[in-house]
Amino acid sequence: MAVTREELRTDADRIIEKSIAAVMPDAAVKRTLEGRDFGDGRVVLVAAGKAAWQMAKAAHELLGSRIDAGVVVTKYDHIKGDVADFQLYEAGHPVPDANSFRGTQAALDVVADLTEKDTVLFLLSGGGSALFEKPLIKPEELKRLTEELLGSGADIKEMNTIRKRMSAVKGGRFALACAPAKVLSIVLSDIIGDPLDMIASGPAYPDRSTAEEAKEIAQKYHLTLTGDMERLLSEETPKMLDNVETYINGSVRELAKAAADAAAELGYEPMILTDCMDCEAREAGRFLSAIARSHQNAPISQAYIAGGETVVHLTGKGKGGRNQEIALAAAVGIAGLDQTAVFSFGSDGTDGPTDAAGGYADGQTVSSDKGGVTNGDSVGGAASSSITKHTVTVAEAEAALADNDAYPLLEKTGGLIMTGATGTNVNDAAVILIRR
Amino acid sequence: MAVTREELRTDADRIIEKSIAAVMPDAAVKRTLEGRDFGDGRVVLVAAGKAAWQMAKAAHELLGSRIDAGVVVTKYDHIKGDVADFQLYEAGHPVPDANSFRGTQAALDVVADLTEKDTVLFLLSGGGSALFEKPLIKPEELKRLTEELLGSGADIKEMNTIRKRMSAVKGGRFALACAPAKVLSIVLSDIIGDPLDMIASGPAYPDRSTAEEAKEIAQKYHLTLTGDMERLLSEETPKMLDNVETYINGSVRELAKAAADAAAELGYEPMILTDCMDCEAREAGRFLSAIARSHQNAPISQAYIAGGETVVHLTGKGKGGRNQEIALAAAVGIAGLDQTAVFSFGSDGTDGPTDAAGGYADGQTVSSDKGGVTNGDSVGGAASSSITKHTVTVAEAEAALADNDAYPLLEKTGGLIMTGATGTNVNDAAVILIRR
Repeated sequence: MAVTREELRTDADRIIEKSIAAVMPDAAVKRTLEGRDFGDGRVVLVAAGKAAWQMAKAAHELLGSRIDAGVVVTKYDHIKGDVADFQLYEAGHPVPDANSFRGTQAALDVVADLTEKDTVLFLLSGGGSALFEKPLIKPEELKRLTEELLGSGADIKEMNTIRKRMSAVKGGRFALACAPAKVLSIVLSDIIGDPLDMIASGPAYPDRSTAEEAKEIAQKYHLTLTGDMERLLSEETPKMLDNVETYINGSVRELAKAAADAAAELGYEPMILTDCMDCEAREAGRFLSAIARSHQNAPISQAYIAGGETVVHLTGKGKGGRNQEIALAAAVGIAGLDQTAVFSFGSDGTDGPTDAAGGYADGQTVSSDKGGVTNGDSVGGAASSSITKHTVTVAEAEAALADNDAYPLLEKTGGLIMTGATGTNVNDAAVILIRR
Repeated sequence: MAVTREELRTDADRIIEKSIAAVMPDAAVKRTLEGRDFGDGRVVLVAAGKAAWQMAKAAHELLGSRIDAGVVVTKYDHIKGDVADFQLYEAGHPVPDANSFRGTQAALDVVADLTEKDTVLFLLSGGGSALFEKPLIKPEELKRLTEELLGSGADIKEMNTIRKRMSAVKGGRFALACAPAKVLSIVLSDIIGDPLDMIASGPAYPDRSTAEEAKEIAQKYHLTLTGDMERLLSEETPKMLDNVETYINGSVRELAKAAADAAAELGYEPMILTDCMDCEAREAGRFLSAIARSHQNAPISQAYIAGGETVVHLTGKGKGGRNQEIALAAAVGIAGLDQTAVFSFGSDGTDGPTDAAGGYADGQTVSSDKGGVTNGDSVGGAASSSITKHTVTVAEAEAALADNDAYPLLEKTGGLIMTGATGTNVNDAAVILIRR
């Protein structure tokens, strides 16, 4: 059955919408908390990260007054209203500021003096590393140490090994502060592969790094340490936490799974290629288009899904993002193929420094002729995301990729995916659709 | 069922061996000719390209004296002995020389004066563009024109549009010279996607380019044309050839299919991802390793196959090739994964300017620890391709990739694939094995 370009785009929009909905913070929180019994102890909520407000609100909607107290620490402009009588903090991100420390102190205060009958609902999302922080040294000393580490050539694991030890909440220490209360940790993951000790530096997760390693790193990079720092480096982080139960929700795995389910509902046979794609964006687009070309003669409709977070090594100064580069690179590879589309989107609704969530391309986005039709008429309806008759040439597409300038070409061809900020952030999904 | 590293490597070697065997020129020729009836006309063989000798030999082995005459034009050092009383020529590649022209003239002579009852067996392989050529202008004029085109910025399609018109055999003209005899064309393809008018510039395939386009190109690039050239540009190449029957054999599609079949025989569930992979080699390796990581928990053994020909943009001066870069980049991505391997090989047995056919990596090739064991002992038998206990660090692997220097690290880890020159050339195949 032949589908029109508009129908293919509609399928894509449906898949994007459903997969983002499945990984929204409120969906993740409600899925985990539904039907749970907290006994007769107190229930205290602590939410930290860019999605903290939504997660706290979802928990409150479900549990109401069963939650005795709450502290929410999120990014500036991310609080959309009161939630019960919870203490709400907006703070610095990606660089922590005084408000981060204040909010985190409030969280430490609210979990102090709990008993083993009590429960801390710990709702963690991306950005928590900066937003949820209470340094054990003076903030200016932490800043100086961080700068020294950044300049030393230490890798991210080494940096975290040092910095966890300078924090009252990272590396499992927040969970330790909650003890003997139980901690029910619901994590909205934005790190591929879900390393729980990395997400927000793992406030409620046992730390694998040791004090010995920390001292070796300090020696290796000749770090300038104050007496306080020396002492903190020797203090061990918790290696075991028996009061914590963790649920990873809204990870890129769920995003990919939701995209597959949505594609299946539309009649595609879905195949999840990977949920940890991490290569160069434009090359991922080329690889995906090669898959699309090779399956052109499939007897049934197929959808291939690749979740993850690609990278862009800047070679130009244009406007775009990694998902837009995937789509534009794939557009070249699928030029001339009917009933085939490749699109990629960030679940947070923001791709690079643009207002688009990602990019969409079909077999007519890039002209398979040498010339290419240049015609700005919209084919579809009035929606800003509808495809146009405008096509670009291979040379234009390659030049735009070389200049990291995918946005303008996708805008012309109606290939921008516009969702607005979604309030979730679990990486990206790229999808190939081949319609039969 | 747990397999050892050696068993996994043995599986890989088996898959490599079987898939190359399936695309060998003799296998391709015999598959097509077996059981074919040539009536009572004459049968004349013309073989051109790097595999011409093997293809001619296979045809002779099958048909014997049914072949009345034969001309073989191949590269220097590619003739391994007499074949019946065929005329054998060795000639220049990649730049045609006087022997190319002599051999091609002999082919034109042998197909002259045939009738419609006769058949020309035309056996074409990679390299035919230089080896099978008879210019209609003086060789030095063709050389000058080619250089002018190379310096003009004309793309490959434009160059071919001009050059086909300067040739007595390209752009379908050889088939025209064979008429009214039938041409049975067996093509061993080394160009992804099998564009028959591109392989050896399509001596037996209708030409899509027109004389009008040729003249436009000459104007566009202000080519300096002699009177002869002007006249030749106006002469049309055949747009239809009703005496030709073409069989594409030994294409990368067959290579991928044979790898899938070989994997299936070993108990893997095979999936051909693509047969036209064409992105940057190391990024393909990263993408493949992401697929491997995501399918670690598959309940059954799986094999993912990607055929094609990746590219390497040189950033260093080391020793390696595109297949070795795929393997080494993938090695980083699968570090620490048991029972998982990624390998990639060129069907011609030569990867880049090295004596290896490609590279092999398993979960122990790159150490998942920080340090990495450095130990040169061989784990397996005495075969040069057996894996060793030597592992490299992520940093070493990344540095080698940045310097295009995959060979030495793969050599240390026993990850070189050594097949020797195979006598076929149908691009590359990359394979992921996940053993359960």
